[in-house]
Amino acid sequence: MFKTPEHQVAGYQACDGKLGPLIDDSGHFYKPLQNDERGSKEVAFYTSFSSNTRIPDYVRRFFPIFHGTQLLEGSDGSGLHPHLVLEDLVSNRVLPSVIDIKIGSRTWYPQASDDYFQRCIKKDGESTSLQLGFRISGLKVYESEESGFWKPNKKQTQSFTMKDVKSVLRKFVSSNPSSDGVPDCSFASVVYGGSTGILAQLLELKAWFEDQTIFHFYSCSVLMVYEKEGALKGIPGAEIKLVDFAHVLEGEGVIDHNFLGGLCSLIKCVSEILTSPDEQTSNAFLKEFENRF
Amino acid sequence: MFKTPEHQVAGYQACDGKLGPLIDDSGHFYKPLQNDERGSKEVAFYTSFSSNTRIPDYVRRFFPIFHGTQLLEGSDGSGLHPHLVLEDLVSNRVLPSVIDIKIGSRTWYPQASDDYFQRCIKKDGESTSLQLGFRISGLKVYESEESGFWKPNKKQTQSFTMKDVKSVLRKFVSSNPSSDGVPDCSFASVVYGGSTGILAQLLELKAWFEDQTIFHFYSCSVLMVYEKEGALKGIPGAEIKLVDFAHVLEGEGVIDHNFLGGLCSLIKCVSEILTSPDEQTSNAFLKEFENRF
Repeated sequence: MFKTPEHQVAGYQACDGKLGPLIDDSGHFYKPLQNDERGSKEVAFYTSFSSNTRIPDYVRRFFPIFHGTQLLEGSDGSGLHPHLVLEDLVSNRVLPSVIDIKIGSRTWYPQASDDYFQRCIKKDGESTSLQLGFRISGLKVYESEESGFWKPNKKQTQSFTMKDVKSVLRKFVSSNPSSDGVPDCSFASVVYGGSTGILAQLLELKAWFEDQTIFHFYSCSVLMVYEKEGALKGIPGAEIKLVDFAHVLEGEGVIDHNFLGGLCSLIKCVSEILTSPDEQTSNAFLKEFENRF
Repeated sequence: MFKTPEHQVAGYQACDGKLGPLIDDSGHFYKPLQNDERGSKEVAFYTSFSSNTRIPDYVRRFFPIFHGTQLLEGSDGSGLHPHLVLEDLVSNRVLPSVIDIKIGSRTWYPQASDDYFQRCIKKDGESTSLQLGFRISGLKVYESEESGFWKPNKKQTQSFTMKDVKSVLRKFVSSNPSSDGVPDCSFASVVYGGSTGILAQLLELKAWFEDQTIFHFYSCSVLMVYEKEGALKGIPGAEIKLVDFAHVLEGEGVIDHNFLGGLCSLIKCVSEILTSPDEQTSNAFLKEFENRF
């Protein structure tokens, strides 16, 4: 009945007998609660969010539906373990291209332990978070029946530079992602553009973040999903979802300027691809650019 | 010919024989170059900015006019010292109310020295920068002929909490700033509101920051200025200016998400005052609020 999710691109994974998420045929995604306070914090967030009447519907659709928690046999075979029961975001997709983008120039927050602060500030500085306001945590891009998915491994993903990230956002909407050549950005206009495309959705999310002072989302990701099959036919079907709420804090009447700043930076990068799909990166970098994939 | 600026609220000041800025009767503000790289960085910024043809006029008006550099006798009497020659932002004002707001949740940047990083991260955490995305560096609010200006001293300003900052932004547009009672926000609509008021100007600035990838402004302040005399008569005359560019870095094709996030937070705080001028702070804080001034 339960199986390992095939299209997960970041986070703990249920492979080699480890504890990780599971899915079933009914469209549910079972995420094991982390044993420390992260687990209880994520449950607290979903509970608070799903009952909060101040969240407008246009925002709610960017979050996975929450179906409570459930005790079930963990994927590591160690016995019953509490799981969050969430919407499986790709259950209605056949061969989805997925990218997980962690938003914010810092993943630590006031009142974080010194140990957590030290680990985060190191990771943020070594990745693109500090400079760019976001980092890519994982991705898979469907290329073709022959070559399947282009999926950089964890080590490659962790070493993405600012230029790599800009290039990968182009590859994500290209028919030749695995190529060493220039990404063709074939699907940029149908996936990123249009009145219901990813850019439009990101701008809706931004409008909410300019106003909301309820939550601060640290270490939270924007997931972008589309299918090549639909994109080839020009059918809009891309969507964004927010995921990972183990480090959500109360907003205490202040906007989430860390998330908002990073989101604006992502929006700028996506916009640039739409305004100049033929360029590999923005003009500023063109000269010194070296294709690393 | 040269005198000490009367309406400066933050930064090095030319008192007690120290080196600080000077003004003259022609509307110029002479800022001594700091001896370390900060001085040369600020000259480099003004030189680059004033010759950059990509800066739209609606943005240029938010920056002091730059008239080059000049060697003149320093205010500390130690002989000739190089000065930036800038527009005196308050030369046309009689009794200006002024507030200096340092924007950004962090004042340090990638490549900062470890020493500088340590000092900044401490100050950012001890002030409201980290939580709120900005901090108040200084202010003076004209109250009346009898009581003159309300001007919290440096120590008081440095100890402002998040609630204090929200209260001070109300006091800044109140006729009773020095009172322990509820700020009356008498001038909120004429100073913050309207099509040419401070909120409108902040939103114009924000639009530029959502797009520009030329500069990253660390430790830079938004100065807000108005005069009570005009505000009493309902005459719009408030303006914002950006000041302090000793820590401006090249944007390298990325938006300034640190400045933009902080600016959005300031915009939210100012908006709240316009939508609920009768409340001392936002609802979320009303219960636990204690007036500290």
